[in-house]
Amino acid sequence: MDLPEIEKINNALRYWILRITHAAGSGHPTTSFSSVELMSMLFFRYFSFDFSRPDASENDRIIFSKGHASALYYSLFHLAGIISEKELLGYRTFESALEGHPTFRFPYAEAATGSLGQGLAIGIGEAWEIRYRSKMKDQRSKIIDNQNSTSVAASFESLVSSPSVYVLLGDAELSEGSNWEAAAFAGNNKIDNVVAIVDANGFGQFAPTAVGSDVEVYARRFESFGWATIVVDGHDLHQIDIAYEKVKIHKGSPIAIIAKTVKGKGVGYYEGKNGFHNKMLPEEELKSALEKFGAGIEGVKEVVKMPETKSIQQTVNISERQPKSIGLSPYAKGEKFASKQGVADALVSLGKVNNRVVVLDGDMANSTGSDLFAKAFPDRFIEVSIAEQTMAGLAVGLSRRGMLPVLATFSVFFTRCFDQLRMAPLSDASMLLHGSYSGVSLGKDGPSQMGLEDIAMMRTIFGSTVVCPSDAASAWKLTEQLIGQKGVSYIRTVREPTEILYASEDEFPIGGSKVFYPSHQRSSASTHKRNVLICAIGITVHEALKAQKMLAEKNIQVTVMDCYSIKPFDTKTLLMLVKEADQLVIVEDHYPEGGLGEVIFSSLFEASPKTSFARPGLAKLKNNAVTGSLAVTHLAVRSEPRSGKPEELLAFEKIDYGAIVGSVI
Amino acid sequence: MDLPEIEKINNALRYWILRITHAAGSGHPTTSFSSVELMSMLFFRYFSFDFSRPDASENDRIIFSKGHASALYYSLFHLAGIISEKELLGYRTFESALEGHPTFRFPYAEAATGSLGQGLAIGIGEAWEIRYRSKMKDQRSKIIDNQNSTSVAASFESLVSSPSVYVLLGDAELSEGSNWEAAAFAGNNKIDNVVAIVDANGFGQFAPTAVGSDVEVYARRFESFGWATIVVDGHDLHQIDIAYEKVKIHKGSPIAIIAKTVKGKGVGYYEGKNGFHNKMLPEEELKSALEKFGAGIEGVKEVVKMPETKSIQQTVNISERQPKSIGLSPYAKGEKFASKQGVADALVSLGKVNNRVVVLDGDMANSTGSDLFAKAFPDRFIEVSIAEQTMAGLAVGLSRRGMLPVLATFSVFFTRCFDQLRMAPLSDASMLLHGSYSGVSLGKDGPSQMGLEDIAMMRTIFGSTVVCPSDAASAWKLTEQLIGQKGVSYIRTVREPTEILYASEDEFPIGGSKVFYPSHQRSSASTHKRNVLICAIGITVHEALKAQKMLAEKNIQVTVMDCYSIKPFDTKTLLMLVKEADQLVIVEDHYPEGGLGEVIFSSLFEASPKTSFARPGLAKLKNNAVTGSLAVTHLAVRSEPRSGKPEELLAFEKIDYGAIVGSVI
Repeated sequence: MDLPEIEKINNALRYWILRITHAAGSGHPTTSFSSVELMSMLFFRYFSFDFSRPDASENDRIIFSKGHASALYYSLFHLAGIISEKELLGYRTFESALEGHPTFRFPYAEAATGSLGQGLAIGIGEAWEIRYRSKMKDQRSKIIDNQNSTSVAASFESLVSSPSVYVLLGDAELSEGSNWEAAAFAGNNKIDNVVAIVDANGFGQFAPTAVGSDVEVYARRFESFGWATIVVDGHDLHQIDIAYEKVKIHKGSPIAIIAKTVKGKGVGYYEGKNGFHNKMLPEEELKSALEKFGAGIEGVKEVVKMPETKSIQQTVNISERQPKSIGLSPYAKGEKFASKQGVADALVSLGKVNNRVVVLDGDMANSTGSDLFAKAFPDRFIEVSIAEQTMAGLAVGLSRRGMLPVLATFSVFFTRCFDQLRMAPLSDASMLLHGSYSGVSLGKDGPSQMGLEDIAMMRTIFGSTVVCPSDAASAWKLTEQLIGQKGVSYIRTVREPTEILYASEDEFPIGGSKVFYPSHQRSSASTHKRNVLICAIGITVHEALKAQKMLAEKNIQVTVMDCYSIKPFDTKTLLMLVKEADQLVIVEDHYPEGGLGEVIFSSLFEASPKTSFARPGLAKLKNNAVTGSLAVTHLAVRSEPRSGKPEELLAFEKIDYGAIVGSVI
Repeated sequence: MDLPEIEKINNALRYWILRITHAAGSGHPTTSFSSVELMSMLFFRYFSFDFSRPDASENDRIIFSKGHASALYYSLFHLAGIISEKELLGYRTFESALEGHPTFRFPYAEAATGSLGQGLAIGIGEAWEIRYRSKMKDQRSKIIDNQNSTSVAASFESLVSSPSVYVLLGDAELSEGSNWEAAAFAGNNKIDNVVAIVDANGFGQFAPTAVGSDVEVYARRFESFGWATIVVDGHDLHQIDIAYEKVKIHKGSPIAIIAKTVKGKGVGYYEGKNGFHNKMLPEEELKSALEKFGAGIEGVKEVVKMPETKSIQQTVNISERQPKSIGLSPYAKGEKFASKQGVADALVSLGKVNNRVVVLDGDMANSTGSDLFAKAFPDRFIEVSIAEQTMAGLAVGLSRRGMLPVLATFSVFFTRCFDQLRMAPLSDASMLLHGSYSGVSLGKDGPSQMGLEDIAMMRTIFGSTVVCPSDAASAWKLTEQLIGQKGVSYIRTVREPTEILYASEDEFPIGGSKVFYPSHQRSSASTHKRNVLICAIGITVHEALKAQKMLAEKNIQVTVMDCYSIKPFDTKTLLMLVKEADQLVIVEDHYPEGGLGEVIFSSLFEASPKTSFARPGLAKLKNNAVTGSLAVTHLAVRSEPRSGKPEELLAFEKIDYGAIVGSVI
């Protein structure tokens, strides 16, 4: 397509941006306008994509990190004939897949954006996967999973040039440190198939950017992180054209196009003014603008070119990526291992049977145990360095390209990428998070390193799975299951070695639990003093079992429930055990808010849509008319944590065996 | 002190670093060693501090962002005569204030660190406050709070040169984007009294850094963000000396010293090797090292010089900063305002009566309403731009220097600085967070912008206060109270204008609630069908009140509890109302995890340390033998959210009045 034709396209884009934002009565026309030339030139002259095979490995990729430019984004697909006029006009309405900011509901969206500063890391993750395919071709011998590998390798051989990942960024967005984290990663790793396109229109939502129109500053920043850069006038088609030509042949480093643009470009009422970030035009202005842009665009359509070659293999989807069994865990009952060891060992075994498993670690591998995987599969270990936001962003991109990402760091440091994690479901991404060194049992390093809010955080992630194994054997089994799990899965482990409680054959279904009944099972309700149920997770299961022994000597029957599956939770078993109990003691190495205690309280109330609050009480009333009640005690981290020995801290927080025994009435 | 003497100090520092880490059996000797020369030269030659008045405004400040170098940090204070040998040897033990990573328990710690990448923003916040004092002096006329202002201004006048804030950073730590966010802020705002000192030893915990010994790279990065830089050999006392001299006279921009160092410097066993990040020495090595460093350091002490002048005024502590009353809210019952308006208006009034109130906003001021404060008090409005981690870090620093920081953005974007927020209590910092545009009622912009996990997150912050007003009048009153509140306080508001429910005179104590009793109060229990209690917060209070009207027509008595105080929660009123109810309906515009529902469930169980689970049921049994139970329904955001009109989304998520009516049995 020649440049003159592009002018027509650009008018059509501006026409539709105005039409749909004004039809919706909301959106961001001005920030869409500033990117029009940059995106029309890319989409219709350099981008190649097979819309019949969106997952095809040879497709280029495009991510609008500045997701609020969605009106432009969808308009591009409309002109490419992918979105009908009717669909386009549904923009931002309830029934439409064309949401205010792109999500997985629009099938061609690589990633959900709208929370700024997330797109670049995701794009780099996709670029990493493309590079991984090429490595696989070179190192076929290394590949274990033949069925998968040959096809993937073949698909790669058939590629003439490796596809590129383009990420459109706003300049105001560059104030998010997450961008520089990601830029450093791409620069350090010389990922040269990712292209950042910065639309520098000089304005944020409320204020002009500090850098303003001195866009060379952004070039210097990218260069300092190891990127090549090209500075252009973002509305000059010839300059843009030359830039994309250069990008096409560039090798050896990531590259950024820094484009100086005008916010609201094309409509005088808007152009280069502050305060119009998400403002609609007055009726008269709208009318004349639509006339101006609408002239002669009747039926304007344009073709996005097909990739030069076809690959045999499409990116496998998650159902095809279910890992094979890794057999039994290597631990013997009674031995001592940290639960984190079970995850680390399982990952190595999973790596052997599935070459889509990739482990990312934040410079903690010798603590988290990821170093074992790094040693076994250097090609599939990503040292992200201390950059959790980038770790999460990469995982979204890797997942979208068919990898099975596992993220490892201390559980508390996932708080650093909460925003990226809560966005992941909107990208339909799946990943396993291994949070180790959880709780006060971490000890001397002190509160800055202790994950005490991680369960609350992970539970809120839409569609998440949250587990907390009490030993390495259950950690092994849970890791095996969670690798193939859809959505964001979280496994919480600790640093302290503890006794292996389970046999290698034991199963740990997601949504299940394990019960340790009192030894004197046989003695009937009438002969014993009291039935106590202790619900625990992770390290507190071991404290609960100690308490069970001590209380047995006082002829108090204690049942311990290992609630390893926190979300989903085993409500059925809980209700069954609660019925028989006089007292419920909940003990967790976590803050009381949003942890095991609240999971249990919710389960008791929400067992059915309309749970009878009093039912357990009434049940008790029948077989225990004296008290007619179930005493509930919730032991959790309630004193401000500090440095100390694990056992000191468990006692200090009143979550150790002594506190449990003391809490029994 | 002459340089030769410094050699003795450095030996003593290395001696104590080894002694206390090996006594503790944990810690980070190697990363402490690489900073020894940089810190001894600063602390004993350039730093000035009056230990008798740690809050004195003329004191310099030092923050170890690389908090794991705490062994060096405490050893400096030991040689300055502040920490006794006995105290020093208590390092990392339970009873000691000298934690594994510095916290508020050590009275001279400016900030808790250990979660890397947080110290720089905190230091910049302290530097901002120092600069603010000087502005106050120039603009005394602008100052409202005379008592405070004169003394503060006077204190500033008496300063010969403004104090400096020094921040020690590790190079591996620089991979955290938070550093570049903060660097951009300081560069843009030309904050020239903050000094970053980068100890570039080339190693992280697990791996060498990507940049390695090519430390010029860090200089280029800082320069690209508007910083001056000096590159030195971090073990060459003369180069260090010259650098600090240059820093002393530098003006017009922040400045960074980039020091090339050797990890483990001084002990051959450690020097420049990977894998010794937190490793202790073998006995023999330790013995010879202690002999080497211990020789002739008997009783070595050194003086930290006093500030050249004394200020009259110490930094006011929070109890002195209690704001004065701002009187009644300007809203009339029945008018329509968004709850966020109540916060925005109250902040302007608070700004008038207290010149320590400072508002930080993340380029959202025209949405959050902070633009009103920005207009009224340009000197006390900080446009952080889209950089939430920096916003939180600045707030910690500002709070430590006696300001009352208020942070404003969309509630969901606080997920971006969860790590900084959960660390804030360890710095003994106080701040008010205004999270607006919460919940699905945000509408068309879609799920990326909707705060649906914010209550769960904020509740986990140690010692936090969490409130959610249902109208602008209660928002006004709550903002007034929370400004002076100790710790991290969170106020959640929405975008949608809703009816003013309360009179300006109404009080909203923290820990309280408001109850809307059914109109037919008088009709006795026998004459009506059923008593329903609806617990709601924020926008769902309005849905609950609609449902109350509709159900009244069916002769169903509905009581609505506005649970505006989420943490602490009004358990007393809840239990009182539950006793009279046949059904409890909880409705919230938040995910079910960690929100109002779980607060209520916890309250019911934890009303007393050993709550009787069945008690409410038994109570019912007495006056309602037929059902003998309280039905519980928890309405929350359970379907994956999307774009749409607020009313559509409230209905879609089944949290609107229709869903409430439908849920009543």
